[in-house]
Amino acid sequence: MSHPKVQRLLINYKTLEEFKEFHEYGLQELSMLEDFQDNMIEDNSESPFYGIYYADKLVARMSLYTISGKYDRYFNPPQDYLELWKLEVLPEYRGKGYGSALVDFAKQFDLPIKTNGRTGSNEFWEKQGFEGVTYNPERDRGENPYVWYPKGVTEQNSEK
Amino acid sequence: MSHPKVQRLLINYKTLEEFKEFHEYGLQELSMLEDFQDNMIEDNSESPFYGIYYADKLVARMSLYTISGKYDRYFNPPQDYLELWKLEVLPEYRGKGYGSALVDFAKQFDLPIKTNGRTGSNEFWEKQGFEGVTYNPERDRGENPYVWYPKGVTEQNSEK
Repeated sequence: MSHPKVQRLLINYKTLEEFKEFHEYGLQELSMLEDFQDNMIEDNSESPFYGIYYADKLVARMSLYTISGKYDRYFNPPQDYLELWKLEVLPEYRGKGYGSALVDFAKQFDLPIKTNGRTGSNEFWEKQGFEGVTYNPERDRGENPYVWYPKGVTEQNSEK
Repeated sequence: MSHPKVQRLLINYKTLEEFKEFHEYGLQELSMLEDFQDNMIEDNSESPFYGIYYADKLVARMSLYTISGKYDRYFNPPQDYLELWKLEVLPEYRGKGYGSALVDFAKQFDLPIKTNGRTGSNEFWEKQGFEGVTYNPERDRGENPYVWYPKGVTEQNSEK
């Protein structure tokens, strides 16, 4: 199998319509749709989403955002890192490596990555080389943070 | 039906064992269990969880945490508010008002409340008097923030 191609998603009617097929559709997508309809975002401007197409259909996606090092409470030394969320593969397209392909794409930026692991996803994240953090009730408040450390990066001391 | 009694959950073997029945069991619970086993938390100390018992069985729970006003990015005027998460009722006990009873309990503190609405829960939160916020990509990063405003409190201007 050839390696699935990951691409940055452009905001247009097709993308916004395709988003509705994903389970995790919420305020973020509704807000993008509204901003697009109100001409507050231009057609085909870049979104925080990356995805994989099968033929002409969006079958997997994730969102990525760079968090400034001054807000970093996860990594040592403190630094810019990527927050990854809404990683999702449509049901009929699972088990084909699309999820891993998206995560590998995120790793190429060579920044630490943090995600909030969904219930039941721990095994997936561990297979991707992520680790659960030392839970810090004040920082994590119910999140299930899983992180990926590039070489030379370690866990930030979390004060309990 | 009498109003279900909400109580703060104490950390002990019974509670920690009962937590395993809830779908949203993650790093938070594992960390509480470890701290308890290592004697870092005393038997029967208070937890951030509140719950409802049916007979002797924990059937509903939520977690509450007060966030200091200096970190408030949701409410106007900025102030201390409650973050609510892991609201969950065991499947056989749904539709009996236990979820609403927990939310009502949280409202009694008369602080604004913020939660990250799970996929598909928007209708529930709206029934509880919560509103979706104006999505701010930089602040909300994939969250689905629903908030409850006590009298005199409004939405903080979210810069897009």
